[in-house]
Amino acid sequence: MKLVSYLVSGRASFGILTQYGIIDLGQKLGQQFSDLKSLITDQDGLAIAQTFVHSPCDIDEQHIVYLPTIPNPNKILCVGMNYAEKRVEFNETCSAPTIFVRFPDSQTGHKTNIIKPTVSNELDYEGELAVIIGKAGSHILKEEALTHVAGYSCYMDGSIRDWQYSWFTAGKNWPNTGAFGPCLTTADEIPDPQTLFITTYLNGQQVQHDTVRNLVHTIPELIAYISSFTHLSAGDVIITGSPGGVGKKRNPPLFMQEGDKIEVDITQIGRLTNTVVSEKR
Amino acid sequence: MKLVSYLVSGRASFGILTQYGIIDLGQKLGQQFSDLKSLITDQDGLAIAQTFVHSPCDIDEQHIVYLPTIPNPNKILCVGMNYAEKRVEFNETCSAPTIFVRFPDSQTGHKTNIIKPTVSNELDYEGELAVIIGKAGSHILKEEALTHVAGYSCYMDGSIRDWQYSWFTAGKNWPNTGAFGPCLTTADEIPDPQTLFITTYLNGQQVQHDTVRNLVHTIPELIAYISSFTHLSAGDVIITGSPGGVGKKRNPPLFMQEGDKIEVDITQIGRLTNTVVSEKR
Repeated sequence: MKLVSYLVSGRASFGILTQYGIIDLGQKLGQQFSDLKSLITDQDGLAIAQTFVHSPCDIDEQHIVYLPTIPNPNKILCVGMNYAEKRVEFNETCSAPTIFVRFPDSQTGHKTNIIKPTVSNELDYEGELAVIIGKAGSHILKEEALTHVAGYSCYMDGSIRDWQYSWFTAGKNWPNTGAFGPCLTTADEIPDPQTLFITTYLNGQQVQHDTVRNLVHTIPELIAYISSFTHLSAGDVIITGSPGGVGKKRNPPLFMQEGDKIEVDITQIGRLTNTVVSEKR
Repeated sequence: MKLVSYLVSGRASFGILTQYGIIDLGQKLGQQFSDLKSLITDQDGLAIAQTFVHSPCDIDEQHIVYLPTIPNPNKILCVGMNYAEKRVEFNETCSAPTIFVRFPDSQTGHKTNIIKPTVSNELDYEGELAVIIGKAGSHILKEEALTHVAGYSCYMDGSIRDWQYSWFTAGKNWPNTGAFGPCLTTADEIPDPQTLFITTYLNGQQVQHDTVRNLVHTIPELIAYISSFTHLSAGDVIITGSPGGVGKKRNPPLFMQEGDKIEVDITQIGRLTNTVVSEKR
C-alpha cells in the first residue's frame, strides 16, 4: 500500500495512491484520524486503511498538491556519512553514526519547488531513503527494530553547503529544501529494505546510485542506536544517508540552479520529483 | 516579571513567581492561553500577565512541581563553542556559529532530577543562558533582534560526552538532561543581556563563571544568523553556549554522579537547581 499526504481543494488530507488515482482516506476516516501520522500512530490504522484498497478512486492524482509524506513529524533524524563512497568523499573517519536534525518546516512535497536561497550558490542534492516509524519505543533492540517501521519513502535532503560549516544544522534547515515523497510504501511490501536501490537524477542525468545494502549503519542498527538516547514516536522520520556523488565533491562542483529538475528514485517506492526555484523576498 | 511553568495538584499551569509565592495565571487566563508559550505568542500576552503582578499569591512555591520554563518549544537551538575559554578547551577554530538541536522531550524543570544514563560515566554540566523568543520572524535584523525576545532563563545543557562524538545530537538528547528554569525573566527587566553573569556550581563548588559580555557571537548576532535559515516562533529557545570549565576538559575529568547537586545561577534570573540520579530501567 502506498500512502500519501496532500492538499485537495485547499483541504489537507491523506489517502492511498493507486495507478488509477487517489482513494481519499481523509474523507472516509477523518473523524478517526486527522492525518497520516495519526493513522500510523494507531496500531490498527494501517489495517483499517487496507480495507479501502479496492475502493473506487476519489481524486485524480493530477488534482492534488503533494505535502511531505509526513508533514508534521515530531523528530526528523538525519544520518550523515552512511555510504562508504560518501565517507571517502568527505574524509569521514568517525565510527559512530553521525546524526543531525532537520525541522519539519524545512520540508516540502513531491512535485513542489525546492527553494535555492539568495545568499548561496551551493544548493546540493542528496538522495536518501527515509524510514518512517510506526510503533513508538525507546531502547529498541536491533533484532526487533524493523517491526517499529511503518514504511519507507524517498527524501531529497537538500544541503546549503557553504552554510554547513563544521555542524550541519545551518546547512540543512532552509525552507523548502527537504523534499519528502511521493508516498509511504508500507513495510509489509518491503520486508528487507537492503534490497532497495536508490538513484538520484539531475535534469535526467544519473548523479547518485547505490543499493541500501551498502549502508554502513543498517536500518535496524540506526533505530537501535537512535532509540537508545531519544524516544521514537509514530511519524518520526530517519533519513538514512546519501550515496556518493554529491555535487560538492565533484570537480568542478555541480550545484543546483533555478529551473533544474531533481529526482530521487527508489525501487518499490517511486520517484520523487522537484524543481528548483530561486528564493523571492 | 518572572514567569514559571509547573504542575499543581497534577494540573499543568503557568504563573508569576514572586517572593511570596505563585500567582496562578493558568487559573485566571486558562481560557485564553493554554500555557506559557501560548501567552507569549500573543503580542498582548505579557501586558495582560502584567496586570496581575499585584494580585495575591494563589500557591505556595513549595507546592508546585516545576516544568521546563517552556515545556513545548517548537525549536530548541543550541549554540556550541561560544565562549572564548570553551573554544580553547575544545580547539574550536570554525568562525561561524555552531548550532545543534535538542528535542523538547530531553528537558526537565527546576528542582527535578537529571538522569545519568546507565551506559555512560561522562555526564557533564554546561551552564548556559537561554533566550526565549516572543515575536516570530525570519531574516530578523541584528539591530531589531532583541525586540523579538520574550525573556531569559537558565539552562543546564547536560551532555553525555562519550556519545557526543563528531556530531552533537546523540550527546545532547537523553531524557532529563536539559534542565530549564527556574523562570523566564521578561526582557523589559534585562534591557542588555550582556550585563548578566553566569555561574555553575557542582555540589556548591564554582565550576564555571563568566559574563555574557564574553559571548563570541552575541545574542542579536545569533538571532539574526539562526533566523536567516529557519523561522523562529514564539516559545523557541536559543541556548547561547557554555563558559569554559566543563568537566570533560579538566585534569582529571570531573563528571556528574548520582547524588550530585548541579546549579546554574544567572544574575537577574535566579538559580536553577537539579539533582543527579541514575537511570532506572
